[in-house]
Amino acid sequence: MQLANLIGPDLRAALEDDPEGLREALEDMHPEDLAEIVEDLADLESVALIRLMGPDLAAEVLERLPADRQVDVMESLEADEAAGLLSEMDPDDRVDVVQELDDDHAEIILAALQKSEPEAAEEVRELVHYPPETAGGLMTPDVISLPPETKVWQAIDRVREIAHAEDAETVYYIYVCAYGEKLMGVVSLREMILGESSQTLAELMNSKVVRVEATDDQEVVADVIARYDLTAVPVVDDHERLLGLVTVDDVVDVVIEEATEDAQKMGGVVPLEDSYFATSFLEFVWKRGAVLVVLFLGQLLTATVMEANENLLHQTLSLVIFVPLILSSGGNTGSQSAALVIRAMAVGEIEVGEWSKVLIHEVAMGLCLGLILGLMGFARGYLVGGDVEALHMGVAVGASTLCVVALGATIGSVLPLLTRRVGLDPAVSSNPLIASLSDVLGLTIYFAVAGFVLEAVF
Amino acid sequence: MQLANLIGPDLRAALEDDPEGLREALEDMHPEDLAEIVEDLADLESVALIRLMGPDLAAEVLERLPADRQVDVMESLEADEAAGLLSEMDPDDRVDVVQELDDDHAEIILAALQKSEPEAAEEVRELVHYPPETAGGLMTPDVISLPPETKVWQAIDRVREIAHAEDAETVYYIYVCAYGEKLMGVVSLREMILGESSQTLAELMNSKVVRVEATDDQEVVADVIARYDLTAVPVVDDHERLLGLVTVDDVVDVVIEEATEDAQKMGGVVPLEDSYFATSFLEFVWKRGAVLVVLFLGQLLTATVMEANENLLHQTLSLVIFVPLILSSGGNTGSQSAALVIRAMAVGEIEVGEWSKVLIHEVAMGLCLGLILGLMGFARGYLVGGDVEALHMGVAVGASTLCVVALGATIGSVLPLLTRRVGLDPAVSSNPLIASLSDVLGLTIYFAVAGFVLEAVF
Repeated sequence: MQLANLIGPDLRAALEDDPEGLREALEDMHPEDLAEIVEDLADLESVALIRLMGPDLAAEVLERLPADRQVDVMESLEADEAAGLLSEMDPDDRVDVVQELDDDHAEIILAALQKSEPEAAEEVRELVHYPPETAGGLMTPDVISLPPETKVWQAIDRVREIAHAEDAETVYYIYVCAYGEKLMGVVSLREMILGESSQTLAELMNSKVVRVEATDDQEVVADVIARYDLTAVPVVDDHERLLGLVTVDDVVDVVIEEATEDAQKMGGVVPLEDSYFATSFLEFVWKRGAVLVVLFLGQLLTATVMEANENLLHQTLSLVIFVPLILSSGGNTGSQSAALVIRAMAVGEIEVGEWSKVLIHEVAMGLCLGLILGLMGFARGYLVGGDVEALHMGVAVGASTLCVVALGATIGSVLPLLTRRVGLDPAVSSNPLIASLSDVLGLTIYFAVAGFVLEAVF
Repeated sequence: MQLANLIGPDLRAALEDDPEGLREALEDMHPEDLAEIVEDLADLESVALIRLMGPDLAAEVLERLPADRQVDVMESLEADEAAGLLSEMDPDDRVDVVQELDDDHAEIILAALQKSEPEAAEEVRELVHYPPETAGGLMTPDVISLPPETKVWQAIDRVREIAHAEDAETVYYIYVCAYGEKLMGVVSLREMILGESSQTLAELMNSKVVRVEATDDQEVVADVIARYDLTAVPVVDDHERLLGLVTVDDVVDVVIEEATEDAQKMGGVVPLEDSYFATSFLEFVWKRGAVLVVLFLGQLLTATVMEANENLLHQTLSLVIFVPLILSSGGNTGSQSAALVIRAMAVGEIEVGEWSKVLIHEVAMGLCLGLILGLMGFARGYLVGGDVEALHMGVAVGASTLCVVALGATIGSVLPLLTRRVGLDPAVSSNPLIASLSDVLGLTIYFAVAGFVLEAVF
C-alpha cells in the first residue's frame, strides 16, 4: 500500500476498509514523514491515524507535530490513551507537550499517567517548573550517572541494561558523579571500549566537563555546544549536581528557532509563538499592528519637520522632489549596518568592549558610501535644477545625501550596540525602527543643509 | 601559571623566560579558549604560541581559528611544520584549510604532506574538488564501513581498533556496505552492544538509511539532519556508494552561517565571506556600495514621480508634508511581510504550492493594518488641513495610507515568493529593495489617490 496515495478521501476509505494494511504501511515509514502527513489532515482523521499506529510509533509522530496540533490530538484522545502516548515519549518532549496543554487537561492526563507510570508523572511535575526556553526546559533527565569507583566492565553492563530499556537519550556519555550526584567527570563510550575492563571510571574520566546551569537560556546552551563542538552537554543545578543533559540535535532546533525570532524582530514583528499558518489573523494584527502604530506615531514627526520648513518649501519647490530619494538612501544604509552588526554580535564576532571600534568603522563606512551616493545625487540635482541655479541644487542634494547616508550608518550601528548595552536583544533594533529614526533626523538634516547651501540664492 | 594574565607583553616575556611552564599551562586549556587567545595576538606571537603546543593540540586550535588567521599561521610556518599540523587535523578541517590557502602555498605544503603521510595528501587532493558549501565539502571520509556478513564481535573489535587509532570522526555508527561500497544499512554502536556477538550486521542493520548526495548543498544537509533528528548522515555519490559522513556538530555551524548570510542579504548586503572584523574596508564598500548604487538608481524614479506631479504640488503644498509618513508606513509593512514569509519558507513552513494562500493572507493583513494606520493618517490630515479643506485632506491622507500599506504587504510577500519561484534565495528580496520598490509605487499611488480626492476642491 502506497501511503502517498492516501490523502483525504482515500485515507478515510482505507481507515474503514483495510485498517490492517494501513497499519503495516505506517510502520514502514519514517516518523518525520508521518508527522507531515498527519499535519495536513483534519483533526478527526489525524486522531484516527494516530490511534491506528502502535503507541511507540504514535509517540514518535506526536513529538514531531507542531505544538498546536499536539494539543488538538491530546485533547481528542481519552485520558488513558493520552497518558499511554505520553509514557512512550522522551521525557523532554513529554514535558513540552504537557506545558502546551491547558491546566485542566494537563491535570487529568497527568492523573491517568500517575496510575500507569507514577515515576514518569513525578518527573513531569518536576521538569514542568523550568521555562521551556532554558537548559532545564530542553534537558532530558534520563542520563547515565555512575560513581567514580565503578569498574569499566560494570559500567558497560549498566550501559547495556539501560540501552535495552531505552531509558537514556544517549548512551555514548557516562557521567561520573560523587555522592549527592555532584558532577565530577565524563567518560565516553568510546573511551570505555578502549579502556581495560578492570580500570575504574575515575581513572578514565575527563574531569574538565563543559556544563550549563538549568536556568541558563537556550541561547547559552546552543552557544556552548556550537563553540566546543559537543554532541551533548550536562545540565547542573547551582550546587553542581547533575540534573540531566541536552543533546546537540535539540540545539539545532534551538538555533533555527532563534534565527527565526531574530529575523522577525529585525523585520519589525513581535516574534510569533507558532508557525506562520498556525498563527491566528488576530494575533498577526496585534504583533504587527502594535509595532506599526508606534512607528507611525514617531513618523508623524516627519510631517512636523516638513511643516516647520514650509517657508523654505514655498520658496524652492524643487527641494521636495528629492525628499524620498535622500531619506531612503539613509534608511537603506542603516538597514545594512544593522544587519551586519546584529549578526556579528549574535555569533560573537563583536565583543562587548569593541563598540567604539564598530562605531568608528560604521561612521567611516557611512561617509565613504555617502560620498559615492552624494556624487550621484549631485549629478541628478545639477541636471534638474528647477527653480534654483543648477550648481546650488546639485550641491544641496549631494551634500544632504552624504550627511543622511552617514547618519543612517551611525543609527544602524549605534542602536543595536545600545540595545545590547541596556540588556535587550540587539535584534529589536528593527529595520523599520532604524528607517523611521533615520527619516525623522534625515529630514531635519536635509532642510538644514539645503537651507544653508541655498541661502546664497535668496 | 594563569594564562589569562599572559596577554601581550607578559606573553612575550613568558615565551622567552619560561616556555616549559607556558607549555604546561596551554595543555590544561580547552582548544576553543586557546583559539580565542591566539586570535587576539599579533601574527608573530600567535605562531610562536602554536609552535609551543604539541602538534595535536596545535591542530585542534588551528581548526577553530577563522579562515584568514589559519592562512596567516600556515604561511608563517615551514612547509614541514605546516604539513605536520595538517596531518593531525580531521580530514574535513584539513581540506578546509587547504582550500583557503593560495595555490602555490597549498602545493608546497601538500608536497611536504605527501612525503610524511601520502594517504592523507591523496585524500585532500580528492576532497578538494567538492565545493566547501556542499555535503562533499562538509564530510569526513573517515567512516566505519563493514560488509553485511560481519559478526557483531568482529565489528566491535574493528571499532576498538579504529577508536584506538582515532581514525574515525564517530565510532557510534557503523555503515554496512555491499561490494563496491554500496550503502546497504546502518548499525549503531548501541545496537551492537545490545546484540548477540554471533549475529551478523545484516541481521541487526536498519536498511532505511537517510542519506545525502555529495553534491547536495549544505542547507539540504542541515535540513535533513534537523528534520530527522540525526547525529550523523552518510554521504553517497550518484551510484549510492558511501563516500563519508557529516556529523551534527558541523551542521550547527552551517545553520548559524546560513542564518548570518540570510540576515545580511535581507539587510541589503552581499554576504561576507569572512567575519566582520576580518573583512577589508574595500570589500565592505563594494558589497554594500553595489547594492546601494543600484537602489539609488531605482529610487531616482521617486524624483521623477514628484516632478510629474509638480502641478498638483504647486496647488497643494500640504500634500508634500505627508510624503515621508506615508511612504515609510508602506516600507515598514513590507519589511514585516518579507521577514515573516522568508523565514517561514526557510524553515519549510510554507511549501512551494502555497503561494496563493500566503498572498491572500498578506494582502488581507495589509488591508487590515492599512485600515488602522489609515484612520490615524486621517486624524492627522484632518487636524493639519493647511491650504485644503480639513475633511478632504484627512480623506486623502487616510485613503493613501491604506493603499500604500496594503501595497507594502503585497510587495513584501510577492517578492520573496517570486525570487524562490525563479530559483533564487528568497532572502535576496532585501528590506532595502522592498522599501525602494514600495517608495516608487507608493508615491504614484499617493498622488493618484490624493489627486482624485482633492479634485473636488479645485
